[in-house]
Amino acid sequence: MNTPNGGYVNLTVVPEFSPGLEGVVGAETAISEVDGANGRLIYRGGFLIEDLAPVVTFEEAAFLLWNGDLPTTAQLEDLRKRLAKARHLKPAADRVLNTMDPGTETMDVLRTAISAEGATKELKQPNLDEAVELVAAMPTIVAAAHRRAGGQKELEPRDDLGHAANLLWMMEGKEPSAERVHWLDTYLVLLADHGLNASTFTARVIASTGSDLTSCVVGAIGALKGPAHGGATFAARGMLDKIGSAENAEAWLRDAHAKHARFPGFGHRVYRTYDPRAKILREMAKTAAPELHRTAAKTEEVALQILHEAHPERPNATNVDFWASVVLTGVGVPKELFTCIFACSRVAGWTAHVLESLADLRIIRPASVWKGPEPGRKPLALAKR
Amino acid sequence: MNTPNGGYVNLTVVPEFSPGLEGVVGAETAISEVDGANGRLIYRGGFLIEDLAPVVTFEEAAFLLWNGDLPTTAQLEDLRKRLAKARHLKPAADRVLNTMDPGTETMDVLRTAISAEGATKELKQPNLDEAVELVAAMPTIVAAAHRRAGGQKELEPRDDLGHAANLLWMMEGKEPSAERVHWLDTYLVLLADHGLNASTFTARVIASTGSDLTSCVVGAIGALKGPAHGGATFAARGMLDKIGSAENAEAWLRDAHAKHARFPGFGHRVYRTYDPRAKILREMAKTAAPELHRTAAKTEEVALQILHEAHPERPNATNVDFWASVVLTGVGVPKELFTCIFACSRVAGWTAHVLESLADLRIIRPASVWKGPEPGRKPLALAKR
Repeated sequence: MNTPNGGYVNLTVVPEFSPGLEGVVGAETAISEVDGANGRLIYRGGFLIEDLAPVVTFEEAAFLLWNGDLPTTAQLEDLRKRLAKARHLKPAADRVLNTMDPGTETMDVLRTAISAEGATKELKQPNLDEAVELVAAMPTIVAAAHRRAGGQKELEPRDDLGHAANLLWMMEGKEPSAERVHWLDTYLVLLADHGLNASTFTARVIASTGSDLTSCVVGAIGALKGPAHGGATFAARGMLDKIGSAENAEAWLRDAHAKHARFPGFGHRVYRTYDPRAKILREMAKTAAPELHRTAAKTEEVALQILHEAHPERPNATNVDFWASVVLTGVGVPKELFTCIFACSRVAGWTAHVLESLADLRIIRPASVWKGPEPGRKPLALAKR
Repeated sequence: MNTPNGGYVNLTVVPEFSPGLEGVVGAETAISEVDGANGRLIYRGGFLIEDLAPVVTFEEAAFLLWNGDLPTTAQLEDLRKRLAKARHLKPAADRVLNTMDPGTETMDVLRTAISAEGATKELKQPNLDEAVELVAAMPTIVAAAHRRAGGQKELEPRDDLGHAANLLWMMEGKEPSAERVHWLDTYLVLLADHGLNASTFTARVIASTGSDLTSCVVGAIGALKGPAHGGATFAARGMLDKIGSAENAEAWLRDAHAKHARFPGFGHRVYRTYDPRAKILREMAKTAAPELHRTAAKTEEVALQILHEAHPERPNATNVDFWASVVLTGVGVPKELFTCIFACSRVAGWTAHVLESLADLRIIRPASVWKGPEPGRKPLALAKR
């Protein structure tokens, strides 16, 4: 973008590059708002997450994100039926799932099988029906991948169970306690949307080209996989495993810090105060995983202290991944599935964002700053190479 | 981001939202530069596309984008060997490909089979070896999907042929003429990279979370699929098919314009003068597809005239998709494969951008502007619903 051509101004203002697009507005949205300064997470319709999480199921939260209000009894019943039906994978996705190597990373199985589940003969515009189908299909794939990895036969979904209960049923083949279902359901509600996080932004960029909803979700799964995003819950649990006990926390963390290790589960781009989701999960973890809670609480205390000593200017608050790893452990989810379970929740947000973006679609195509040499070399001069 | 907390400034400047991130810098890069004002496309190392395209093969262009310089004879020979080897799909990808319904949209097959090709047991950092493998695997999948759709048996790749020639061989089972190979090769070189287009940006967002290279490419395939991006070549050919002849162009276009139809293949976010790639393809189309060239040339003339009459202030130049559709037709590529062939080219750029981004990885997580209501509603108040 060197010089304007014939008086035409190419780009009105080329601002400086902000790494990670920090502070750059990527979208206008009414799906959710992360008010980092005040530690608030607002879901569509104006609900604070701490008001919503204790009283709604994941199905209700997904309905809210998609439609802008909580469902009536009839609407909820209708959604439950549609979800139950769509838990049964399409034949192509079922075949793809069953032909993959059982030892494959479950996020890779999910990415591939969801791609097959949403494969069509012709380009399809994103719509709410497909959003429901994708949300329903994800737990079936995750549970099947988990059972295949363990050499177990996959199970048929249960139409009579709610979303969270059916997910545990398909993983374990036994009906889960109401308590475990509630913990998982709360986790799924809390993680369902979070502004323009990297995976949601990925989904919106893909949607901006006029592509289909499955392509958006498949891309978002790939983004969530990264350890700086959805993979952080797994990493946080890995750290807690290494620490082992509350007594060992101080020594382990000081040693790791001296070796310049980062503490997974701490720090966030947006929150400047305690993440409201982490607060809810921390409280829940007391009952869900009492022993790990003790280790985690001490780990949190020491980690925050070390980080504050090193960078007093940084608001290094505990993030949701840290306490999510403890609650998911209490639910009985193997840590290898943490990122997949995160995807089972966030897919509600991904699809809600894509559907919202359709109202004013414009291809997302940012500018770039050229760091290479000015043109001047001729490849023909290299003909003797 | 309402009020700063305790004097900590949350985000230094929240600029206004620029739809489509127009004018917002998404990355600093030395892979390619679209100098839209001057109608220049610069590839890594400082080569103008018009100097490069006539004299290099796709393999050489990919090497340049990955490594920063054109290959020596020995380096090129090494790359050719590695590409030839990686044309043979991994067993999982081969099984996935063969279990999908033959009528599936080829971009959906590509998205799914590449996801399977790059599936691993553990998270893998992006690296050049995997980039080579993905570039090599794409034509195998596209050709196989094409042959399965037509009820034909898929063919083994030919290790003795170059990238473009092998692609045509695998589609058709007969050795293509040197002329056709040259046309396709030139197309593949021209389309291999183009700044921060939507699919490349998608790949960079996914990479920014620390995810793997296959996840980046799978997401990029999904973005390329959209009709506002890679799907435009197919759409341009569809328009030319409807117009049918040079004589019919004026009447058809004036009628379509009166009905507010958009002309696929015209307009671009960045170029203000004639797209240098379109210029090369337009010239090549005279030999590659003389009859369609006649229709296309008249179509271009009339379309530009109509668009100029309607919006004299807009620089509505012909874009690369318009003339690419004519050249690919001349090569003998069925229009249903246009977007896939585009992907076979752009994957060089996607992977080059991801590898470049590793040097300074920071999660891409933009801010958003809240358009919903301020929190105040309590879900419990709706308990009677």
